[in-house]
Amino acid sequence: MKSFAFAVGVLAMPAILHAQAPAGLAEQADTALEADRMAWDFVEGITTEVGPRMPGTEAEARGRKWAMAWLEANGFANVANEPYMMQTWLRREEEAEIVSPFPQPMAITALGNSASTGPEGITAQVVGLPSYAALQALPDGALEGKIAFITHDMRVTQDGSGYSFAGPARWTGPAVAASKGAIATVIRSIGTDNHRTPHTGGTNFPEGTRPIPAGALSNPDADNLERMLERAEQVRMKLVLTPQVVGETESGNVVAEITGRDVSLPPVLLACHLDSWDLGTGAIDDGAGCGIIAAAAKNVAATGQPLRTIRLLFAGAEEVGVFGGAAYARAHGDEPVAVAIESDFGADRIWRIDTNFAESNEGLHNRLAEAVARFGVAPSTAVATGGADIGIARDQGTAIIDLQQDGTRYFDLHHTPDDTLDKVDPAQLRQNVAVWTQVVGILANEAGSIKPAE
Amino acid sequence: MKSFAFAVGVLAMPAILHAQAPAGLAEQADTALEADRMAWDFVEGITTEVGPRMPGTEAEARGRKWAMAWLEANGFANVANEPYMMQTWLRREEEAEIVSPFPQPMAITALGNSASTGPEGITAQVVGLPSYAALQALPDGALEGKIAFITHDMRVTQDGSGYSFAGPARWTGPAVAASKGAIATVIRSIGTDNHRTPHTGGTNFPEGTRPIPAGALSNPDADNLERMLERAEQVRMKLVLTPQVVGETESGNVVAEITGRDVSLPPVLLACHLDSWDLGTGAIDDGAGCGIIAAAAKNVAATGQPLRTIRLLFAGAEEVGVFGGAAYARAHGDEPVAVAIESDFGADRIWRIDTNFAESNEGLHNRLAEAVARFGVAPSTAVATGGADIGIARDQGTAIIDLQQDGTRYFDLHHTPDDTLDKVDPAQLRQNVAVWTQVVGILANEAGSIKPAE
Repeated sequence: MKSFAFAVGVLAMPAILHAQAPAGLAEQADTALEADRMAWDFVEGITTEVGPRMPGTEAEARGRKWAMAWLEANGFANVANEPYMMQTWLRREEEAEIVSPFPQPMAITALGNSASTGPEGITAQVVGLPSYAALQALPDGALEGKIAFITHDMRVTQDGSGYSFAGPARWTGPAVAASKGAIATVIRSIGTDNHRTPHTGGTNFPEGTRPIPAGALSNPDADNLERMLERAEQVRMKLVLTPQVVGETESGNVVAEITGRDVSLPPVLLACHLDSWDLGTGAIDDGAGCGIIAAAAKNVAATGQPLRTIRLLFAGAEEVGVFGGAAYARAHGDEPVAVAIESDFGADRIWRIDTNFAESNEGLHNRLAEAVARFGVAPSTAVATGGADIGIARDQGTAIIDLQQDGTRYFDLHHTPDDTLDKVDPAQLRQNVAVWTQVVGILANEAGSIKPAE
Repeated sequence: MKSFAFAVGVLAMPAILHAQAPAGLAEQADTALEADRMAWDFVEGITTEVGPRMPGTEAEARGRKWAMAWLEANGFANVANEPYMMQTWLRREEEAEIVSPFPQPMAITALGNSASTGPEGITAQVVGLPSYAALQALPDGALEGKIAFITHDMRVTQDGSGYSFAGPARWTGPAVAASKGAIATVIRSIGTDNHRTPHTGGTNFPEGTRPIPAGALSNPDADNLERMLERAEQVRMKLVLTPQVVGETESGNVVAEITGRDVSLPPVLLACHLDSWDLGTGAIDDGAGCGIIAAAAKNVAATGQPLRTIRLLFAGAEEVGVFGGAAYARAHGDEPVAVAIESDFGADRIWRIDTNFAESNEGLHNRLAEAVARFGVAPSTAVATGGADIGIARDQGTAIIDLQQDGTRYFDLHHTPDDTLDKVDPAQLRQNVAVWTQVVGILANEAGSIKPAE
């Protein structure tokens, strides 16, 4: 009878049986909101016991080893290091000073992929450019022999869109300045704080362009340089930036799983990145993200073995060119992913849920939105595009969810020495874990395609 | 008749005639609150055109030259440089790293008067001490061969009293640690922020004690080191601090005056300091103070020539041992001062007025308190003791007023690279100028003794 009843049940409502989240999921998520310690344990541990984890370095390797031991200690299955080789750029000396007419030092940091000035440095006139557009509008040769100063400022936005607006000054500003003759570029930090801690980050010299020394001034220093340019006909700066490309070194991704009941089903992929810039200790970028996804996976497992495998990707070398995410896509591109979600925007509260299947799977989209509403998370009509390390999901055209975190404070700290544990608010971190627990628990127990072909 | 009437007036109410503040004073102060630009002009100018002004250096000398030109351009009389010689200590390399068991760099800065580790640095075990009292309680020899880590924390207080509570860890902690065998000392920054910008400041090795290398970690680094000490039996740190005493160099005070109608009367002395620590640009400590006192003096002069001379002292070399204030007291000790006031606590609003003559001259005390009440300044029963650079007034036992500024934010910035112009709130700066204008205007037109002998 039991067996018959079961069979009838399966036949009568297979979707419901498979689709149903485990009975205790909501309670587990509610408990996480009040009491989760696991995400904090990860971010506290890795920032204290490892610290900065610059891509391609021994410190990043120590981070992988530490994370693998932590994942194993917390009962994850199939914990593995997946190494790959990469070109590694390292920061060395970095100094800037105004030599005339108002001599004083300035706080600077090199941008990733910056060329070197050589140890003797370079001294040249500074040309101020109020925006990236003003730089682009310059005629060829306009910056010949000069240091370009792009002082495009950035304002606080909750959704991080200010980064997209100001970011080009860093991403491609130095290459554009080089193409117009500049011998170096300094930018106003792509950041929203007023501290003397400049924001690093990668810049890109496309194939065929000439790399030049490129650094970011802190916002107070950029303010000061702007004032100097208003007061003097000519301002001259000395710049010493001696970063090096040290050649090919090993980096790696760490993967781990909560094995599902049906391993033939494509897994739910949760991603973060384990590397960090060298200036801080990688707490909000992105120790917190790895802690959040691991804690959520464990919370889901605590409500019973999920239908689908939950796969964690702690990517390597995100900061300097998404080398880890690319290696993962190469290695696993032919393994279908059911849905991918990434946590890589700090540790502040999630305020919005976006998916890319609102039309193709409206029922699931609405179910997810309803399930997280009690945590203050609003639905949206924006289409999720996913984080940097889940390119595999974009390649496969599969389901993606963005659990949007509040970015109001994020760019005060992003890529600075101030990315440290004390910036993580434990209560907001727990809200992240609660929302992720709820969402991952539903997805990992969803039998049907999450983003059906339309 | 005119002459007779005047004589009658003098005879009938001499105190009132002389004691009366000029008719336009209140209006002048009110206007300052809305529109004063002069204090801002000073602090913007000196931070932009000079920058850091480390005592005894060429940069401090440029600061004096700049300030003298500014004072002359603004119509002050008797602008003068009063040079003196001093022993000059300069910061050089500064690096700290944990070498085991959790290798990572830490943000450190040398304390003024720190000894050098030599360029090769020193490596030793760290001993954590939760407070200055815990350090004092250690038996002799307890720190033999160790690096003492004093992690006495500091909380925000409006009146700055947190500095008195935590300060000894910096002022004398290294000397006490040395007396117990420590080969170096690192302290938690004496500051209330959570940025990776450690707070420098002077430490003192009394005659007969052995100077050792001494630095401050930023608060996030001190947090991290505390966590490490909780997790590991032994934590080892490498410290490279190579400051130098470069020998005797010239420093100086800048003085300037608004000449009074009766130069036989002792002047009103207004003080600030022109030097700054090398890490920031000396905006809140103490460019703002010099701007405030100069603007107030000019505002008073704008209401008519004051009875008493108003004398400005822009002291040199306050930060490293009040050399300027001491030189001023030596040079001018036999010239009586009527009353002294110093501005050296940032640029945030004045919230309280203290005098040291509430008992001996209750009428004037109350008149001052009533005159500034409209700017939100409360009277108090605290007895004013004056700032560092007006030792001359303490030596003379003369009148002192403290216009207490709000210190809530001050120790976030104090002695860090973050002491820059953007931290000055123009509205609060103007409130300072308004209150000083009102107070100085009354004092400079007061004929009688401000603090009569009791």
